[in-house]
Amino acid sequence: METTDQLAGIEISTEKEELICYSYDSSIAEPELPRAVAWPRNTEQVIRLAKYASDHNISLIPRGAGTGMAGSSVPVATECMVISFEKMRKIIDINTKNMTVVVEPGILNSTLQQELKYLGFFYPPDPASLNISTIGGNVATNAGGPRAVKYGVTRDYVMEIEAVTADGTLINAGGRTYKRAVGYDLKNLLVGSEGTLALSTRIRLKILPLPQDVLTLLAIFKDLETAGQAVTKILSSNIAPRTMELMDRLSIEAVENYKSTGLPPEAEALLLIEFDGISSAVQQEAETVIELCRPFGGDIIVAEDDAARDRLWEARRSISPALYHIKPSKINEDIVVPRDKIAAILKDIKKLSEESGIKIISFGHAGDGNLHVNIMTDKNDPEEYRQGLAIVKKLFEITLNYKGSISGEHGIGITKAPYLEMEIKKRELELMKGIKKIFDPKGMLNPGKIFC
Amino acid sequence: METTDQLAGIEISTEKEELICYSYDSSIAEPELPRAVAWPRNTEQVIRLAKYASDHNISLIPRGAGTGMAGSSVPVATECMVISFEKMRKIIDINTKNMTVVVEPGILNSTLQQELKYLGFFYPPDPASLNISTIGGNVATNAGGPRAVKYGVTRDYVMEIEAVTADGTLINAGGRTYKRAVGYDLKNLLVGSEGTLALSTRIRLKILPLPQDVLTLLAIFKDLETAGQAVTKILSSNIAPRTMELMDRLSIEAVENYKSTGLPPEAEALLLIEFDGISSAVQQEAETVIELCRPFGGDIIVAEDDAARDRLWEARRSISPALYHIKPSKINEDIVVPRDKIAAILKDIKKLSEESGIKIISFGHAGDGNLHVNIMTDKNDPEEYRQGLAIVKKLFEITLNYKGSISGEHGIGITKAPYLEMEIKKRELELMKGIKKIFDPKGMLNPGKIFC
Repeated sequence: METTDQLAGIEISTEKEELICYSYDSSIAEPELPRAVAWPRNTEQVIRLAKYASDHNISLIPRGAGTGMAGSSVPVATECMVISFEKMRKIIDINTKNMTVVVEPGILNSTLQQELKYLGFFYPPDPASLNISTIGGNVATNAGGPRAVKYGVTRDYVMEIEAVTADGTLINAGGRTYKRAVGYDLKNLLVGSEGTLALSTRIRLKILPLPQDVLTLLAIFKDLETAGQAVTKILSSNIAPRTMELMDRLSIEAVENYKSTGLPPEAEALLLIEFDGISSAVQQEAETVIELCRPFGGDIIVAEDDAARDRLWEARRSISPALYHIKPSKINEDIVVPRDKIAAILKDIKKLSEESGIKIISFGHAGDGNLHVNIMTDKNDPEEYRQGLAIVKKLFEITLNYKGSISGEHGIGITKAPYLEMEIKKRELELMKGIKKIFDPKGMLNPGKIFC
Repeated sequence: METTDQLAGIEISTEKEELICYSYDSSIAEPELPRAVAWPRNTEQVIRLAKYASDHNISLIPRGAGTGMAGSSVPVATECMVISFEKMRKIIDINTKNMTVVVEPGILNSTLQQELKYLGFFYPPDPASLNISTIGGNVATNAGGPRAVKYGVTRDYVMEIEAVTADGTLINAGGRTYKRAVGYDLKNLLVGSEGTLALSTRIRLKILPLPQDVLTLLAIFKDLETAGQAVTKILSSNIAPRTMELMDRLSIEAVENYKSTGLPPEAEALLLIEFDGISSAVQQEAETVIELCRPFGGDIIVAEDDAARDRLWEARRSISPALYHIKPSKINEDIVVPRDKIAAILKDIKKLSEESGIKIISFGHAGDGNLHVNIMTDKNDPEEYRQGLAIVKKLFEITLNYKGSISGEHGIGITKAPYLEMEIKKRELELMKGIKKIFDPKGMLNPGKIFC
């Protein structure tokens, strides 16, 4: 990198160690080394970086905390600079009357949650990575999380985004009011665009008051399909649990081997079901669910206190890291199907595993039809890995046959880009590429992502 | 119109009476007469109409039921054809397990509500026009309604849109699963685009189970500002009423003169507050609200039965038609401010009225900060009308000073297009116009709307 006045005062490194560290995410995408990593401290520095990059034809790879599962923040060419938002992590404003908060993109989801909790509020989207992922990254991938089944996804809470376009212009998308019918919805275009349209510098989010009460149940099933059937039954019964998380036997085993949290070892499938709201309503909903699970043979354990609840959630959130201990290069997909197809696709996945002899571990947000399907392969065994990739393709075909989608919350990034055209038709793809050109005519922002 | 094989079997009229009827909406926009009106019966006919129009350089003006408040379905040039969706009004599919419904755009909101109610479900968006407005029109303007304060707006319930682009290509935006992170969000781009990007032919919506219980309160205040303060207090108190509708004294008078529904005539302001959910929770929320209203001097009437509730809602929904009986060309704006600014802007509006001597009637969705501000002028009195338009400009300035928005749910259409640049900055406007060009390079769809 040439030193230049244009970049004065901006923290930038070209040290190889840094370049390596900032080129990986949590996916299997293989990075190129960027030319530099920059850590802007404010919007003005982001604008200067964008202008510099544009002037010098260096592409920019925006990065939150690198917890992405699809390679969205992984450089694919060397003529690029990673722009890390980890030093733009302030809470700018909390307005409890309007129930909104303004943050910089680099703040961790959990840091925001802690601050809000102190004031009696919460921010509903809770990706399992919430302790290590940033709001900016959550917005870029339209992150979901367990609570999405009741509260919706990141998109539903983003009100306004201040962002810098590829040429260094500052824009505002969305507004301070939730209701708004003024021109095209640029805000929702930016959410989930994986850093390919603009660089977010400030994000206004809706927040909600903390619920009066929370009640957590663990429902234990003797097989996976039955658990899937129970999910559909519960969700069409006029109750709204805030989570409906599924774990299959292999997930349970993986977690218990990684760090024992006391999950029932004999279970073939678990549902982690949580309710929140006014105490009396929560009690009533829980009782209904216990009744509904009975015909499916689902035994129920109620978390008696906060410690018991925390243990259950620790187990749930440990699945993903635990799996890396089984196979270092597991292929992690996050397909989603209409929720009445959960039981059917679980059966199909079992068959895929049996036919190939490759372990497939499924867990995730059953209430949304959104499953994390982990195909346990090792890249060092090329034949196994090739087979793993073949399973991915079949899994996507099955998913799309059920009218589902190849990504529920991870995004397309690099790893799913080759499959995009299985889901998105030619004309829609042309429209998307046209939109990309409008925002970023020179293709400077996060090249190689979403579109091959 | 030339008769041509391209249009074989499509119902089309060029009768002047029809052209006149199909050129108006509920706004003050002044129409040109279109060359024809077409009533397609299915997607295939819409495709043929789009291709014909594109081949012959005739622009298309999509139209639901013509209840729009901003002129979005009003022709601005004669070389156009109105495409009325009123004969595409089927329910294609109701899936109670997935809680989704697929409809054609011409179905009335209330027709859908009735069918769903029979099955124990409802579709939350409920614009006051629900008995006469179509789902297609609701989607085109991202319609809100009283229940938006709890349930959100149309955008939040649209999952997938099948649409025909200007060149007659069929596209699908969105999908069957709510969670989805696959490329850019074309669905939300279509919602609220006022028919300028594509012609919706099928719409998949989320639905919800009917709540167990509903409880309706009428809170009576001695002045408007105090009512505004009560709104902010209630909404920041960890309760979620499903409506929080405000009526000022002039709205009450207008309704009572139009058709008496027994509203308290001495009230300066009313709040129509409704709760839904599990009975015990509803009771508890209502009791909390009664307590919260006390310091503001808000007397409470509880609707004792369905008939009493229906009467209150009939009164609320009659405001808009009632106002036409006072002044035939009232200027109806639907500004929205952050909700802690409701009391302040109500005070400012009062001042605008006092200074000008022109009656201004305010009512609407106070819980969302979304007010229908009716400037009561008569076009036949040019001086009064000129003054009315000057008030509109001032109102928008005040709204934007409070970081609000010039349209909460009506859209921009023709009537607000001259004010768009007060809210949308140059670069954002360029992006929007760029997107329009990507979808509709020849500018054939609903010209003259949103952008001047």
